[in-house]
Amino acid sequence: MIKAAIIGATGYAGAELVRILSRHPQVRLTAITSQSYAGQAFWQVYPHLYKYIDLTCEEMDLINIINQSDVIFAALPHGHAMPIVLEAVKQNKKIIDLGADFRIDDPVVYESWYKVTHTAVDLLAEAVYGLPEINRNRIKEARILANPGCYPTSAILGLAPLLARGLIEPESIIIDSKSGVSGAGRSLSLNTHYSEVNESIKAYNIGQHRHTPEIEQEISKIAGQKITLSFTPHLTPMIRGILSTIYAKLKIEALDMDLGQLYRDFYQEEPFVRVLPEGCLPRTKDVSGSNFCDVAVVKDKRTGRAVVVSAIDNLLKGASGQAVQNMNIMFGFAEATGIDDPSLYP
Amino acid sequence: MIKAAIIGATGYAGAELVRILSRHPQVRLTAITSQSYAGQAFWQVYPHLYKYIDLTCEEMDLINIINQSDVIFAALPHGHAMPIVLEAVKQNKKIIDLGADFRIDDPVVYESWYKVTHTAVDLLAEAVYGLPEINRNRIKEARILANPGCYPTSAILGLAPLLARGLIEPESIIIDSKSGVSGAGRSLSLNTHYSEVNESIKAYNIGQHRHTPEIEQEISKIAGQKITLSFTPHLTPMIRGILSTIYAKLKIEALDMDLGQLYRDFYQEEPFVRVLPEGCLPRTKDVSGSNFCDVAVVKDKRTGRAVVVSAIDNLLKGASGQAVQNMNIMFGFAEATGIDDPSLYP
Amino acid sequence: MIKAAIIGATGYAGAELVRILSRHPQVRLTAITSQSYAGQAFWQVYPHLYKYIDLTCEEMDLINIINQSDVIFAALPHGHAMPIVLEAVKQNKKIIDLGADFRIDDPVVYESWYKVTHTAVDLLAEAVYGLPEINRNRIKEARILANPGCYPTSAILGLAPLLARGLIEPESIIIDSKSGVSGAGRSLSLNTHYSEVNESIKAYNIGQHRHTPEIEQEISKIAGQKITLSFTPHLTPMIRGILSTIYAKLKIEALDMDLGQLYRDFYQEEPFVRVLPEGCLPRTKDVSGSNFCDVAVVKDKRTGRAVVVSAIDNLLKGASGQAVQNMNIMFGFAEATGIDDPSLYP
Amino acid sequence: MIKAAIIGATGYAGAELVRILSRHPQVRLTAITSQSYAGQAFWQVYPHLYKYIDLTCEEMDLINIINQSDVIFAALPHGHAMPIVLEAVKQNKKIIDLGADFRIDDPVVYESWYKVTHTAVDLLAEAVYGLPEINRNRIKEARILANPGCYPTSAILGLAPLLARGLIEPESIIIDSKSGVSGAGRSLSLNTHYSEVNESIKAYNIGQHRHTPEIEQEISKIAGQKITLSFTPHLTPMIRGILSTIYAKLKIEALDMDLGQLYRDFYQEEPFVRVLPEGCLPRTKDVSGSNFCDVAVVKDKRTGRAVVVSAIDNLLKGASGQAVQNMNIMFGFAEATGIDDPSLYP
Repeated sequence: MIKAAIIGATGYAGAELVRILSRHPQVRLTAITSQSYAGQAFWQVYPHLYKYIDLTCEEMDLINIINQSDVIFAALPHGHAMPIVLEAVKQNKKIIDLGADFRIDDPVVYESWYKVTHTAVDLLAEAVYGLPEINRNRIKEARILANPGCYPTSAILGLAPLLARGLIEPESIIIDSKSGVSGAGRSLSLNTHYSEVNESIKAYNIGQHRHTPEIEQEISKIAGQKITLSFTPHLTPMIRGILSTIYAKLKIEALDMDLGQLYRDFYQEEPFVRVLPEGCLPRTKDVSGSNFCDVAVVKDKRTGRAVVVSAIDNLLKGASGQAVQNMNIMFGFAEATGIDDPSLYP
Repeated sequence: MIKAAIIGATGYAGAELVRILSRHPQVRLTAITSQSYAGQAFWQVYPHLYKYIDLTCEEMDLINIINQSDVIFAALPHGHAMPIVLEAVKQNKKIIDLGADFRIDDPVVYESWYKVTHTAVDLLAEAVYGLPEINRNRIKEARILANPGCYPTSAILGLAPLLARGLIEPESIIIDSKSGVSGAGRSLSLNTHYSEVNESIKAYNIGQHRHTPEIEQEISKIAGQKITLSFTPHLTPMIRGILSTIYAKLKIEALDMDLGQLYRDFYQEEPFVRVLPEGCLPRTKDVSGSNFCDVAVVKDKRTGRAVVVSAIDNLLKGASGQAVQNMNIMFGFAEATGIDDPSLYP
Repeated sequence: MIKAAIIGATGYAGAELVRILSRHPQVRLTAITSQSYAGQAFWQVYPHLYKYIDLTCEEMDLINIINQSDVIFAALPHGHAMPIVLEAVKQNKKIIDLGADFRIDDPVVYESWYKVTHTAVDLLAEAVYGLPEINRNRIKEARILANPGCYPTSAILGLAPLLARGLIEPESIIIDSKSGVSGAGRSLSLNTHYSEVNESIKAYNIGQHRHTPEIEQEISKIAGQKITLSFTPHLTPMIRGILSTIYAKLKIEALDMDLGQLYRDFYQEEPFVRVLPEGCLPRTKDVSGSNFCDVAVVKDKRTGRAVVVSAIDNLLKGASGQAVQNMNIMFGFAEATGIDDPSLYP
Repeated sequence: MIKAAIIGATGYAGAELVRILSRHPQVRLTAITSQSYAGQAFWQVYPHLYKYIDLTCEEMDLINIINQSDVIFAALPHGHAMPIVLEAVKQNKKIIDLGADFRIDDPVVYESWYKVTHTAVDLLAEAVYGLPEINRNRIKEARILANPGCYPTSAILGLAPLLARGLIEPESIIIDSKSGVSGAGRSLSLNTHYSEVNESIKAYNIGQHRHTPEIEQEISKIAGQKITLSFTPHLTPMIRGILSTIYAKLKIEALDMDLGQLYRDFYQEEPFVRVLPEGCLPRTKDVSGSNFCDVAVVKDKRTGRAVVVSAIDNLLKGASGQAVQNMNIMFGFAEATGIDDPSLYP
């Protein structure tokens, strides 16, 4: 039984952490903090957990909170995790950051995309990018865990098998992603106002989304060469889910390979990646509420391209579910503990 | 560990039973049947359970299926449960019928509303109406369990405290219910065709819905007198959930009572009814994915009426969740086993 | 050709006025004002009208705007229309107020429900409640037009035939209304945040909604006696539409009447009320985008009640469409000019 | 005043034709046919047009219907238009086919994608592909008008300026399209069943959708060379709208060009294409209910690609709106007659 604290518990990712960790058999939630709702019972902020969870939101007393915890989850907007990580390291506690502050290896890249100064540059090298399917061994030893972004999780898991085997032209990669509205969080905005969003789909931040350098960094490592790619996010009229449709030019030697088998082999041992059988394609609804990433690969001989489709629940495998999966690995728990629910369908 | 079979596993209620029972620690699913999908793996019918559930749909071999099971769940359209119940009783097995065939005590009433002949009239007296909050003790001993309808569950739980205390005029009751589309099942119909249903709300079957006699029968028992009421169902553009808004004239002695406290006392020990604090009103989203029924009562002094609002997930507390709750009671398991998930929010 | 100004053009009702009036063959839009967006092109605020409407939002220069207009539309939150009406009257211009400030005859009632002091009490008696089906003749002569609320429009049109003929028990009326989210306007709120609202229905302001005294006042006039009633609004996961389900006890003499025929006779000449044929029930989608109010009445002999269902588009017949209908009447134009679009379906 | 007939009036495209043509000032609807609903009033099939349209669905008496009409609209599944076109040509009437039968120049290509024998091969050369922005002059003279598919309309309008100027690498084109559910028509299917579709997005028919050869054929003509491309359609949880996100490698000479200006110049005179200002991106909601195609082009210097986004209403510019636009051109009416509504927003 370990003690866990959640800093920033009243955003959607934080609330999912509260839901999952409050039922995790090897975790005791010791503190949840919220800037906006300090002093309120958590169920007042999220009435679906009335009579289910008996926690009160606290103001952040950083030193004490970290002192009382074995693991700290930070679920904050980018730019806010550095002081928390610094203090956690000082106290030699494990920290899982759901934000972007420790995902980008190069602080210059971080600062140019995020427009924020990085105040813990010395710790960047130690941070582990928490995609278990790629980095499981490093995660086991991690003290600072940079939990991946939602889009990058779907994109990297979709591309990894092809890249690891060197089967695609690296400069040909295009990632067209469609996200549900919960990815934009609980903060009010015309972009998430019901009457503006429903019955509409749009692209946004074309070529400029902050998850671009994160995807490029991680797939460059897998490919063993520097990759630049096109990434376009879209806002879709649904609450949960990300679907990424990924295009890449196949190398000649790949044109006659069984790519489905390649994917099945690559993810054979993975508890949370399901390579769908031939002829099936992922739907976000099939993973909604679960920690699964569903993947399918289609070889299009006419164009010589592979088209990969991957689907996740942005709040689970794309955020809080993956964070708990990482915690399980870091503390030696069974990897699926607390996150083994299937999708709620329909 | 008991053995369970599901007859009619590929409708939405059946699929929820499969999801819940496949993870229930004291149940082993021995057979699932489907007329339409016999021979197919269950995940082919419901891909969200791929790699999660390893069952194949069977044709119904009634005698054998019942023989191999300790409990049988029938999730079929009305009129189809009688032969199953007859055989289950013959083999002295417990049967939980999610349909309407054993809910109505009087076969004449059943036949006039359902336009079907009842072929197991002798067993009607033995069937127990499976609303645990009202009938828990009888459920413990039940062999034939008539699992309540979705609308009746929300209506009866909303009205029971007022009726049990005799605080409302019985002839004044009006129930205005709003259901999500999954309540209409998986059968194809223009009424459930996406482009027809989305962005629209409508009433249907005004004064003629088949759940009317079921509600009247059960609340008449609670009130100790025969009650006739108005019930209007509506189809709402969402997947899951029923919200019932219930109106009743308060008797004079009730006008100064604390009705909220009355409800809290009435449901004090109930694991799945949450009487919301003063000032809070139920939302279907807060119970979606859970077995909870959320209730609030408002006393409107201007009109002398009580307005009660209750919310359930029609597929859980309104169908499969409640069926498992009943099974837990019938077999002496902890009542919340397998159905203690909170809502998935947002 | 008359000149019209819209004060408060960038809320949803204002935007619908802009859309309708910019194409109205007998109107020239001379000014649109917006506190939040002054100086911006209207299409920047509402890009769906790009290249369609070439107007810029202005700051409100009240005296000049009124001076340059023949009719002024005020589409503002309650409490803001009094100075505008005062100035319009001073300049002897016609004013159509889409807010609540001139709907309630008794300033004491207004102030107790709206918590605002009425600063133009002397003008209340002159204001005409703009429901054409009830008040057409008075509207023709009106200088101050109080455009009805969305819920009251659906409720009053649903009840008028029964009340005018004295066929129901006045104290038995219950109105259960379901509104789309656009009724809550464009202001940001957690109540209209996509992920909170979608896939959920809830009641709100039970017995306390500000449209209650408006409905009671108008139906009391029709009935010729003071009526108190229950009104419960609900928020439904769709953008446009109000469905009101109305319950009332029938007097004995009504139990054998053909209520459908009564409604058809009552609304025979009305261009914007459609009494549906026997067996059909209104759906909000069938009126969405149109100025129609669809109505059906069901006689439930079991309970002795009439159940009336009415459907409108809250932004058209419930706000801006009706405002233009009123303007057409006030200026002697053909009543359907500019608002004769049928619903956009599906 | 011309006389028009609609064959297949009760699908969604047919119903939109009925709505538009019944109000078109230069058209009289003489006949509407329906296989499924012959003999029923149109409003019984589409109640939103009750009291609005007074037409009855007929069985198809082909020779007479064509005889009585100046223009025939065929809104049928592919494979059914050939006999109609043959008869129309025989009687020397103008025919607008909303299906695919006359869009593909090469019958071998048609038959290999559509799995149907083409029975009017001799007429293919005469058919004009009805995209006014590309083929307006030929449309003026057309007798057989092949109305474009919904996806092709959005794709071709998005690509035409770049292709016409030769600014992109032809083999680099990838079209990722997202469609609302109404594109799948009114026929019942699990793919359009509300509870299966809502809250989910998926890709389908990757590399195999029948609109692929249509897009390739038309953009090859514009480019003056044979183009093979990747096209992936997606089903999105909304009723109306198609958003196409199009990727193409820019030639070196294009990297410093003002692509937005290029698009504005190209579509300068077009009544139904809106090139959005710098910094704005299309949303389907902004065109929903209108005949507009909104387009934006983004130059991504990092990757050397152009990313074009286009949005249409699949039932209007993607089907019936464009069919009426073509009719207007064919008969010399003002091009926007009857289809000049802006989007209904929100």
